[in-house]
Amino acid sequence: MNLKILSGTANPLLAEKIAEAVGVRRSQVLLDRFPDSELHVEIQESVRGADVYIVQPTCPPVDEHLLELLFMADACRRAGASYLSAVIPYFGYARQDRRSHGREPLGVRVIADLIASGFQRIIAVDFHSHAVESAFNIPVEHVSAVSLLADTARSSIHGDAVVVSPDLGAVKMAERYAKLLDLPTAIIHKSRISGEEVSVRRIVGDIRNREVLIIDDMISTGGTIEKAIKSLIEAGCSTSGLKVLASHGLLVGPAAQRLGPLPIERMFISDSVPAPDSFPAPLQIVSLAPLLAKTIQRLHRQEPLGELTARE
Amino acid sequence: MNLKILSGTANPLLAEKIAEAVGVRRSQVLLDRFPDSELHVEIQESVRGADVYIVQPTCPPVDEHLLELLFMADACRRAGASYLSAVIPYFGYARQDRRSHGREPLGVRVIADLIASGFQRIIAVDFHSHAVESAFNIPVEHVSAVSLLADTARSSIHGDAVVVSPDLGAVKMAERYAKLLDLPTAIIHKSRISGEEVSVRRIVGDIRNREVLIIDDMISTGGTIEKAIKSLIEAGCSTSGLKVLASHGLLVGPAAQRLGPLPIERMFISDSVPAPDSFPAPLQIVSLAPLLAKTIQRLHRQEPLGELTARE
Amino acid sequence: MNLKILSGTANPLLAEKIAEAVGVRRSQVLLDRFPDSELHVEIQESVRGADVYIVQPTCPPVDEHLLELLFMADACRRAGASYLSAVIPYFGYARQDRRSHGREPLGVRVIADLIASGFQRIIAVDFHSHAVESAFNIPVEHVSAVSLLADTARSSIHGDAVVVSPDLGAVKMAERYAKLLDLPTAIIHKSRISGEEVSVRRIVGDIRNREVLIIDDMISTGGTIEKAIKSLIEAGCSTSGLKVLASHGLLVGPAAQRLGPLPIERMFISDSVPAPDSFPAPLQIVSLAPLLAKTIQRLHRQEPLGELTARE
Amino acid sequence: MNLKILSGTANPLLAEKIAEAVGVRRSQVLLDRFPDSELHVEIQESVRGADVYIVQPTCPPVDEHLLELLFMADACRRAGASYLSAVIPYFGYARQDRRSHGREPLGVRVIADLIASGFQRIIAVDFHSHAVESAFNIPVEHVSAVSLLADTARSSIHGDAVVVSPDLGAVKMAERYAKLLDLPTAIIHKSRISGEEVSVRRIVGDIRNREVLIIDDMISTGGTIEKAIKSLIEAGCSTSGLKVLASHGLLVGPAAQRLGPLPIERMFISDSVPAPDSFPAPLQIVSLAPLLAKTIQRLHRQEPLGELTARE
Amino acid sequence: MNLKILSGTANPLLAEKIAEAVGVRRSQVLLDRFPDSELHVEIQESVRGADVYIVQPTCPPVDEHLLELLFMADACRRAGASYLSAVIPYFGYARQDRRSHGREPLGVRVIADLIASGFQRIIAVDFHSHAVESAFNIPVEHVSAVSLLADTARSSIHGDAVVVSPDLGAVKMAERYAKLLDLPTAIIHKSRISGEEVSVRRIVGDIRNREVLIIDDMISTGGTIEKAIKSLIEAGCSTSGLKVLASHGLLVGPAAQRLGPLPIERMFISDSVPAPDSFPAPLQIVSLAPLLAKTIQRLHRQEPLGELTARE
Amino acid sequence: MNLKILSGTANPLLAEKIAEAVGVRRSQVLLDRFPDSELHVEIQESVRGADVYIVQPTCPPVDEHLLELLFMADACRRAGASYLSAVIPYFGYARQDRRSHGREPLGVRVIADLIASGFQRIIAVDFHSHAVESAFNIPVEHVSAVSLLADTARSSIHGDAVVVSPDLGAVKMAERYAKLLDLPTAIIHKSRISGEEVSVRRIVGDIRNREVLIIDDMISTGGTIEKAIKSLIEAGCSTSGLKVLASHGLLVGPAAQRLGPLPIERMFISDSVPAPDSFPAPLQIVSLAPLLAKTIQRLHRQEPLGELTARE
Repeated sequence: MNLKILSGTANPLLAEKIAEAVGVRRSQVLLDRFPDSELHVEIQESVRGADVYIVQPTCPPVDEHLLELLFMADACRRAGASYLSAVIPYFGYARQDRRSHGREPLGVRVIADLIASGFQRIIAVDFHSHAVESAFNIPVEHVSAVSLLADTARSSIHGDAVVVSPDLGAVKMAERYAKLLDLPTAIIHKSRISGEEVSVRRIVGDIRNREVLIIDDMISTGGTIEKAIKSLIEAGCSTSGLKVLASHGLLVGPAAQRLGPLPIERMFISDSVPAPDSFPAPLQIVSLAPLLAKTIQRLHRQEPLGELTARE
Repeated sequence: MNLKILSGTANPLLAEKIAEAVGVRRSQVLLDRFPDSELHVEIQESVRGADVYIVQPTCPPVDEHLLELLFMADACRRAGASYLSAVIPYFGYARQDRRSHGREPLGVRVIADLIASGFQRIIAVDFHSHAVESAFNIPVEHVSAVSLLADTARSSIHGDAVVVSPDLGAVKMAERYAKLLDLPTAIIHKSRISGEEVSVRRIVGDIRNREVLIIDDMISTGGTIEKAIKSLIEAGCSTSGLKVLASHGLLVGPAAQRLGPLPIERMFISDSVPAPDSFPAPLQIVSLAPLLAKTIQRLHRQEPLGELTARE
Repeated sequence: MNLKILSGTANPLLAEKIAEAVGVRRSQVLLDRFPDSELHVEIQESVRGADVYIVQPTCPPVDEHLLELLFMADACRRAGASYLSAVIPYFGYARQDRRSHGREPLGVRVIADLIASGFQRIIAVDFHSHAVESAFNIPVEHVSAVSLLADTARSSIHGDAVVVSPDLGAVKMAERYAKLLDLPTAIIHKSRISGEEVSVRRIVGDIRNREVLIIDDMISTGGTIEKAIKSLIEAGCSTSGLKVLASHGLLVGPAAQRLGPLPIERMFISDSVPAPDSFPAPLQIVSLAPLLAKTIQRLHRQEPLGELTARE
Repeated sequence: MNLKILSGTANPLLAEKIAEAVGVRRSQVLLDRFPDSELHVEIQESVRGADVYIVQPTCPPVDEHLLELLFMADACRRAGASYLSAVIPYFGYARQDRRSHGREPLGVRVIADLIASGFQRIIAVDFHSHAVESAFNIPVEHVSAVSLLADTARSSIHGDAVVVSPDLGAVKMAERYAKLLDLPTAIIHKSRISGEEVSVRRIVGDIRNREVLIIDDMISTGGTIEKAIKSLIEAGCSTSGLKVLASHGLLVGPAAQRLGPLPIERMFISDSVPAPDSFPAPLQIVSLAPLLAKTIQRLHRQEPLGELTARE
Repeated sequence: MNLKILSGTANPLLAEKIAEAVGVRRSQVLLDRFPDSELHVEIQESVRGADVYIVQPTCPPVDEHLLELLFMADACRRAGASYLSAVIPYFGYARQDRRSHGREPLGVRVIADLIASGFQRIIAVDFHSHAVESAFNIPVEHVSAVSLLADTARSSIHGDAVVVSPDLGAVKMAERYAKLLDLPTAIIHKSRISGEEVSVRRIVGDIRNREVLIIDDMISTGGTIEKAIKSLIEAGCSTSGLKVLASHGLLVGPAAQRLGPLPIERMFISDSVPAPDSFPAPLQIVSLAPLLAKTIQRLHRQEPLGELTARE
Repeated sequence: MNLKILSGTANPLLAEKIAEAVGVRRSQVLLDRFPDSELHVEIQESVRGADVYIVQPTCPPVDEHLLELLFMADACRRAGASYLSAVIPYFGYARQDRRSHGREPLGVRVIADLIASGFQRIIAVDFHSHAVESAFNIPVEHVSAVSLLADTARSSIHGDAVVVSPDLGAVKMAERYAKLLDLPTAIIHKSRISGEEVSVRRIVGDIRNREVLIIDDMISTGGTIEKAIKSLIEAGCSTSGLKVLASHGLLVGPAAQRLGPLPIERMFISDSVPAPDSFPAPLQIVSLAPLLAKTIQRLHRQEPLGELTARE
């Protein structure tokens, strides 16, 4: 079975790097839109009998990227591809995994069912929550960028440092960073002081005069990170050496104006989604290509993924 | 069973008119996008046990409108709606009903399967081809705007007139108009003169000095209509009273610059998609609201659709 | 459509109370096992055309209770029931919503798919995590026992009290209790002190000399609660008035020997699963019957569930 | 994976020729009917792990041939075949791709779903319409007999010739013949002369004194071809050298008495369905065996079909 | 919900009688075949929202009757029928419920899946084996003609009589007849005398000088009945008053020449399939119309079927 | 594709022997239960791309063994297994293949659908009825222990012997034994003597002074065998050399006290289920390991099963 790597329009550069790392030429796909916005897809080479990997993060504009993914899958399936894997470095709609306010859709399940209708497997990087897997009825190979990011950030840690989870959702990820970097952890969370007083942001763990590494699975509009940094500074953390690490750097909406003014030494993010052309905070982009290439190679050779798998 | 009419963002005005014609209040739906472009949907009133009709043409931007439709369907289904009908006044991707150039997706089937996964029935107006129905495994109630458009145009026909199909695809629709308006038909089509000479556009039927009514199911970029009008004028049709009738007026891309300079007396199109804010040719918009309201009422009361159904 | 309430062997007493509260007679079901352990089910009255609710928590022995549920569903479906709802006051296997250690099954999805194959809807009480819903492709009506438990416990709160979440997973539920009871919250959680030192249990929020209400969604073997109480006492909480509130009191394995010796004033749990015949700590059982009866009645009458729905 | 070719009773001769061209022995299948007309199927050799191609046009009696196809598929699947392809040289029910007169079935979709329930892929020759593909959710390898027929007919064209489409449905196929044979095209079609006068048959393109090649995808009862020939003669085409080319020669019902008396020099048809034992017009049967053998070989070797694919 | 009764071409007379007994007019269906044997179906009146019963035994020619059934179901479903029941008085292919000789299809499952794809429920009369039900994933309402036949035959029993099962497969049905008619039973079966001698037909039970009632679920070619009668006569049963009772009288192939010469007083069969125009043995046809009408009425009114249900 | 053999907890010893006979090491699986009875499964080695056989009879406790099977299947599927076969030496719930007493589930179909949802194929030994296959939509490889048991028992037959079927259900299996052992057969069955007298047990065939081999597919509580032996002795069979042969020896409930006192020389049963620790009658256990190992090897090598297949 031939291995083929295809890309939608969401992140062709990453797909290119993955193909290079795998050692294959990226298969050409014609992807354009008619004047009425309808998508036209044409796979430019034979995929008959092939083990096909389609690289497409579902980052903004999310709906277009999803439809592209489904159209590429249908084209490959009808052209005789043997096995279809969706490589989704960033998986959108992951936060809609419950109906919190009543008559909402269960977004994550809608999307998971769409993808599962076209693919035999998905490969994803650092889901917003590990439980996202339960929305899929096809095998999910869930790998993590945490090691890559930790390895990259390690040399820039100079003093007493602490890994900080900016809310309760990232606590387990913070523990993984802490273990890899041999550091303590701290948590920021909001809780209610009394029945009358509204909730306040509290920091648990020792951050005073320490170099902080704020970690999260993703940075979208930067609100959580902004509030975390402000709280940490107020609470006396070291204002130098402040680092932010996140698997996914969407950096949409007010992210630039929120994070730009803050004393961030460096933000380490992966290239799961294309980086903004310019950003007021210093970004260090860590490529997922080696990780995803290794994942694809092991899957193609039917080998276990072992240490690449995301663990809590 | 209560009847509920909901709308996505594609054509809320039409949905409003349909609701009014049916005699119900349009159910409120919260539809917004997060800064990362992810859709958020919330149905604002109970649809439990209801017979729900969601109005949403899949016009540009087609992918966003499709996802909205699927999210609204999931929200309604999980909120206990009894029966879900997608009212799709304009159905996009209808031309991708075959794989003409090899490794393409079968777009119409991809879309039909997506919609069928969320609905029990669709209501559509003048598909690009009647065979689109075979892509759906759920019942399709296919109604036609041809009567409405013919009735509206009738009073503006003054001299000897002829219904012209601008290509072979619209011939059957032209026959329907001709029958309703008691007029002859003509056809424009391209054919090959010899093995060497490329094809030319030929007109079959008598159009000399006649008032022409060019009809089509839809006008997208206006290319077909532009070429038809130029051929007809060259062939000697009357240059006054030239009318264009089409169920769907997308009028995207170069449509304005193509059709603006031509001596079009009037274009009759429905409101299946929102009309452009301004257009250089005189548009007469015929509302589908009475047709779709009648369709919904009969379906809700379990009555036959009879004469509303699209026929070839 | 007639409303019928059936029960498996998991909690017939609760089913009986629900039927009584709804005002119908519980439909008789013959459920026995052949000497080879095979299940034999016979519905003893007509369910043709009925709106059937089968009450069955999937508490231990979980596999038997699951199979009973599936067999009852098949019997009702083949006997012509119109609509089948599984009423699952306690939903087992909810913690297997991710594959944490490699080649595991995704238990929650296996179970959700089994149930969805036999029912049109499930009604559940306080899932271990709200995201469990994303494993179901059928509508889930998720209601909460928190109000019931808070209302019952209210009169026994005498001094300065605090709602304590024994780990990060119950923080949102603690906030709901706090809001209903007009109390502050505290959180216990483990975190890493340094790269070398292993994690310690820390308490965030003011608990000194306060009456504590430890809350959780469920108590299984009592380990989490035991450690929480010990930490709280060590940290100086009031040793009188200590209360435990949990939607589900499985109380299996070493629960009795763990919780018996502790200074628990009272444990408030629901009757989602049958209470142990005897337990060394004072149990106050709050019946879910009024809540589930109201839920069933509203669903049967196609009314919105409103305030009954579980919210985060 | 072994390649196996099986045949139903619809066209065993063609299957035999395909097997020979592929270079394999045709696998024996026992197919008989019990006295109560029930079908009995037994595959006479192992197909375990095999790449199986079952040759069966769905020509008359269409229902029996369909059921045979489904029974052979089930027998192969349960006997462990790895991949099942239906080779359907003539695909019946293709014209029922829309509901034209109200409460009809969508025949093409019913049949497509039946076939897709038993096979992983179908191989078809010159569908009545390319859009038939959208009724299938499995890959369709659609190949064309047009090249074969054109190549065979070429040497019998002597004077100025023209390719004639006998109605609008065959225009695109006529263009393909014209391109291959380096000839001009003409079209016959009916249109309405005025509101009162009913439609007449008109010829577009130059046919006067020309040798005509009337082409179509299929000849069923010969009505369309009969009327076309009469119109062409009346309009002055050459009465010598008149040829008819069609991918499928069903020649049922009144076909013999309609076509027998006409001055047809030769009819070129494929062996997609068995030729009638005798026919009053000179038939030249062009075997599809080389085309289908090549198709099967390429699919079996996972090679692209390239120029074999039917194009519009 | 309106009740509608439709019929295919297999047994319109029975359908007519059922409709009459139910008290509704039989809905008209246009069913014809094109010259190429393709089926054309058109439901002639509205079935929107209706509770539709389609009467069609799958007797010879079985494939045509099956396809008719599927096409009628698709037509009704797409025309908005609410609930579709297949009324199959005789169910063909029931004996293919196992693969006895290797690479056979599992005919009963193929057919059951086809029917289940188009209907919500089937109503059947005296399956060849009760286990046929396990091939269906939709509810099967299995009713029996045994009471009807026993009641009809009762008055013609004059002397000492015995109910004889002609092989092991009909033993349970013989017991039911015996119980209803207050008679003893006997069994004919073949068994092996020794390792060398082939099996012989033996009669168990007292038949000497008795009036015999040979019963079976169906008579196809009459072979089993012929051999049974010959054995019984040889063994000394009374040669007068010999009766045959069977739910289904297909009487195909050599049935007439086999049964004609035998001293059969009367054969009691139902009208599940149309009786042969003439038959050399005296047939008494017992109509299923009252039974099926009662079944349909109870189902339509959501009442239990009670005593109508087939029991072993 | 690697061949992997896994086992649940139902019969690990048999799995071990099969693995040994196949020549592979049994793959380790962690199977334990949490204190709340929930199952925890972890496959301890890579199954990616493997041809996996999971050995698990569904003997008591049947529900636990079923769930284990489904959980192992899900774990393997999500871990990338290529093909999953359930090896079910004893298949429970086989007798629930019809709804005999009204509103029952169709147990065999419920179970078959559960298993088919997780596997691509099942391998089973001597189903209670061959028709059980029709409940499965996946291929069933049905093999038989009859040869093995007959071969083992052969040397212990000393005098004139006869194979006895203890009821009508085992007659065909008795014929197979008789053919293999070159012996005559006899049948025990109950039938009604007259309308008033209830049924009596009768023996057909010559058993007087003969050594009897009572055969059956399975022995559950021993009731059928007990009554058969008593009838045979009463009817004068030889009281020495009495043997019982059955594919499956469940021996549950009162089996020991029923069979212990009887003059059984030896019971030959397979190890499809674990034998009881002690049993009062002399058991000779014949291992299925060679049969199942051969079956697995042939399937893995894509060879026909030939003589291993169960035949009637």
